[in-house]
Amino acid sequence: MNILLGEPFRKWCKTMRKVVLLSTGSTKYGRIDVTAREAALTAAKEAVEKAGIENREIQALYISNVFSMTERQGHLGPLIATSLGVPWIPALTIETACASGGTAFREAYANVAAGFYDCVLVVGTEKVSHLDVVTATTYFSYGSDYQFEAVNGASFPGLYAAMARAHMHQYGTTEEQMASVAVKNHENALHNPKAHFHKKITVEDVLKSRVIASPLKLYDCCPFSDGASAAIVASEEFAKKYTDTLIYVMGSGRATSPAALFDRENMASIPATNLAMNQALKQAKLSRKEIDFLEVHDCFTIAEIMAIEDLGFCEKGEGGKISDEGVTARDGEIPVNPSGGLKAKGHPVGATGVGQINEVYEQLMGEAGKRQVEGAMTALTHNIGATGGTCSLHIFRRGD
Amino acid sequence: MNILLGEPFRKWCKTMRKVVLLSTGSTKYGRIDVTAREAALTAAKEAVEKAGIENREIQALYISNVFSMTERQGHLGPLIATSLGVPWIPALTIETACASGGTAFREAYANVAAGFYDCVLVVGTEKVSHLDVVTATTYFSYGSDYQFEAVNGASFPGLYAAMARAHMHQYGTTEEQMASVAVKNHENALHNPKAHFHKKITVEDVLKSRVIASPLKLYDCCPFSDGASAAIVASEEFAKKYTDTLIYVMGSGRATSPAALFDRENMASIPATNLAMNQALKQAKLSRKEIDFLEVHDCFTIAEIMAIEDLGFCEKGEGGKISDEGVTARDGEIPVNPSGGLKAKGHPVGATGVGQINEVYEQLMGEAGKRQVEGAMTALTHNIGATGGTCSLHIFRRGD
Repeated sequence: MNILLGEPFRKWCKTMRKVVLLSTGSTKYGRIDVTAREAALTAAKEAVEKAGIENREIQALYISNVFSMTERQGHLGPLIATSLGVPWIPALTIETACASGGTAFREAYANVAAGFYDCVLVVGTEKVSHLDVVTATTYFSYGSDYQFEAVNGASFPGLYAAMARAHMHQYGTTEEQMASVAVKNHENALHNPKAHFHKKITVEDVLKSRVIASPLKLYDCCPFSDGASAAIVASEEFAKKYTDTLIYVMGSGRATSPAALFDRENMASIPATNLAMNQALKQAKLSRKEIDFLEVHDCFTIAEIMAIEDLGFCEKGEGGKISDEGVTARDGEIPVNPSGGLKAKGHPVGATGVGQINEVYEQLMGEAGKRQVEGAMTALTHNIGATGGTCSLHIFRRGD
Repeated sequence: MNILLGEPFRKWCKTMRKVVLLSTGSTKYGRIDVTAREAALTAAKEAVEKAGIENREIQALYISNVFSMTERQGHLGPLIATSLGVPWIPALTIETACASGGTAFREAYANVAAGFYDCVLVVGTEKVSHLDVVTATTYFSYGSDYQFEAVNGASFPGLYAAMARAHMHQYGTTEEQMASVAVKNHENALHNPKAHFHKKITVEDVLKSRVIASPLKLYDCCPFSDGASAAIVASEEFAKKYTDTLIYVMGSGRATSPAALFDRENMASIPATNLAMNQALKQAKLSRKEIDFLEVHDCFTIAEIMAIEDLGFCEKGEGGKISDEGVTARDGEIPVNPSGGLKAKGHPVGATGVGQINEVYEQLMGEAGKRQVEGAMTALTHNIGATGGTCSLHIFRRGD
C-alpha cells in the first residue's frame, strides 16, 4: 500500500511550488431557502471579497456537490462560472460522497501546485432540506456499497452503529464517552454564528435522546444541513500581491478504504484516514505535536473518536477516553472541531470539506472570535466519504 | 478571455513531463444488462491487460459518470477501486454532463504531468437503459440551465433544434446536409464491433424519420446508450517499461461557455470549443493540418457541423457543405468520427469522452480494422457537455 508514498510523490514534493489558502467564505449552515447554485454564489462572493481579487482573476472553478440532481440541476460548472461573470474558465464538479469538498480542494491545490493556474476557486454546496428525512436518508445511503449494504437496510446510521458496537466491544468505549463528543461540539458551535445548531446539551440529553440505530441516539448524529463554503487557492506569488499573511497548504493526503464495511479488517477503524495522514505529514515535514487543532469528520460521535485514533493523536481505542477527559476541548491539549464539527456546525454534504477549511482560515487568521483556539498556527482538516471509503486530508500552516 | 493562455499555462508547458496514453478498453455500447459499476470493471480489465500492467500498479482512479444515482449508487471511487483489488488508491468521480469523460481524462493527465502519479486509470461508465425515454430525457435536461431552459420545456433535442435553426438561418445550412452527417457516421459504425448501431441509412431515411424537435428528426439524434470505456495514462518513463509504441498526449484544452443558450452571442456556435482548441494547439505546437482525424461530439448532427467549424477545420458556416461533399468521410480530407461518433457508436454519457480516446488509441495503433484511417499518426478528441457549457479537448500523437 505504500505506492502512494513512492517515487513520484517524493519527486513532486521536492519540485512543487508553494500554494496558499488566500481566503474563504461560507453561508450559514442549516435550512436555506435558495438553491445549491445560489448558495454557492454567496459563499464565493465572500471569498472573493476577502481575497481582494476580481472575479475575472479566477482561472478555474472546482465544485463539490452530491445531490443537486434532486434539485433537477447537474452540470453546475458552467452555471456557476456564468453567474460569477467568468463563463469561459474550466469548471467541473467532483463527487466522493461526504468527502467531496476535501477532494475538490485537493484537485484545485494539485493544479495550482503543478503550475496550471495561479488562482482557483473551490466551492462546495448542498441543498437537501427539500427532501423529507426518509428520502434524504435513502439518497445518502447511495454513498455506501448500495448493492450489498443499503439494500439490506443498512443506512448510514446503521453502518456507523455497527462501527460503534465494534469499537465498544474491542476497546470498551462507552455511550457516555460518545455523548461527550456531542456535548463538546455543541458547546463549540454556540460561538459559531454560521453553525446549524446553537443549543447547549448535556451528556444526559444525549443519552436520553431518541434511539436512531442503537447505540447511536439522535444527538450522536449530525443533522441534514444546507449550505455552501468557498475557498480561494493561489500560488504564493499571486497571493503575495494581496496579503502579507500567508496560510500555506503544507500537505495533502488522499486515500480509499474498502468500500463496504464487511471488507474491512477492523470495523472500528478507517484505514484511509491513516494512509492519508501519513502522506500529508510526510509532505508537510511536520509532526503531530506541531498541529494546533483538528477539524475532523464527526458525522456521528463515534466517527470523531475513530478519527483522532486513526490520525494517531492517541492510541487506538483511547479516543473515547480522551474525549471524555476534555483533551479535545477547545482549551484542551488537542482541540478537535472548534467550529462545532459536522455534529453541531452542520453537514451540507458537498460543502463540509470546504467548510472545515473555512474554519481553519478563520482560526489561523485569528478571526474566530469566542471560539478562537489561542495561538493556532497549524491545523488539519480530515474529510471522510461514507463509512470511510474516501479520505481527503489537508494540513495548513500560517507563515510567520 | 485569454487568461487561460496566460503566464502559468506557458510556464507549465515548458516544464511539464511527457504523458503517454498507454492503453484503452471499452465495452460494447448499447443496452447492457449490468450496472455502471460492473461495466466499468470490464472496460478497466481490457485496458489493464492491453497495457500489460498489474492492477496494483494503478496509483489513482478517475471516474466519469453522471447518472449512477438513478441506479441508487454514488461514491463510485472506492467501490471500483475495491473491485479492482486496490482499495487504497485515491479515487473520485468527475461530472461535467456529457463532457465528463474528457474532463476526467484531463484531470488524470494533469496529475501525471505534474508528477503526482506515474500510472492512472480513467474509467467512464454509464447505465441509463433502465429509464424510460421520457425519464431519461428529463434527467438529461438537468445538464442545461434547468431553472431557465428545461423548466420551460426546452430539453436537449429542443435546444439543439434551436441551434440548428439558427445555423440554417445564418449560414443556409440544409436538413440534407445535416442528414449527410448521420449517414456518414452510421456507415463508419458498420465497421466498429462495439458500436450501438450497425445499420446503414440513407439521406432519405433521415429526412423521413420521425420529427423529434424540428428541424431535428430521429436520425439526427444520438441514442441513449449504456457502456463503459477506460484509458491508462502514464508518465513516459513508466510507459517505456511496457511498450515501444508511445502515444503522447500533446495538448489538453478545457473551457466553459455561458451555460444557457440565451446568454450566447451566437446560438450557432460553441465558444468553449474554440477556446479549448486554441489552448491545446498552442500546447501541442501543432497546426490543424497535422491532425489526421477528429473524434467530435455529435450528439446531434448539427453538433458535428458546429464542431468542425468552431475547431477551425473550415470557415464558420461551411460545416454542412463540407459534410455533404464527403470531406469528413473516413477517406476524406479530414476524417471525422471514424468510430461512428455519438450518433452511431452510441453515447453512454460518462463513457463518451473516454470512448473517443479509445478510438484514437485503436486508430493510432493501426488496430481499427476496416474503419482504419490510413496512416493516422495524430488525432483530436472533442467532448462537449450539454449545449456546449463545457468543452474538454485533447490532441494525441504517436511517436515515430
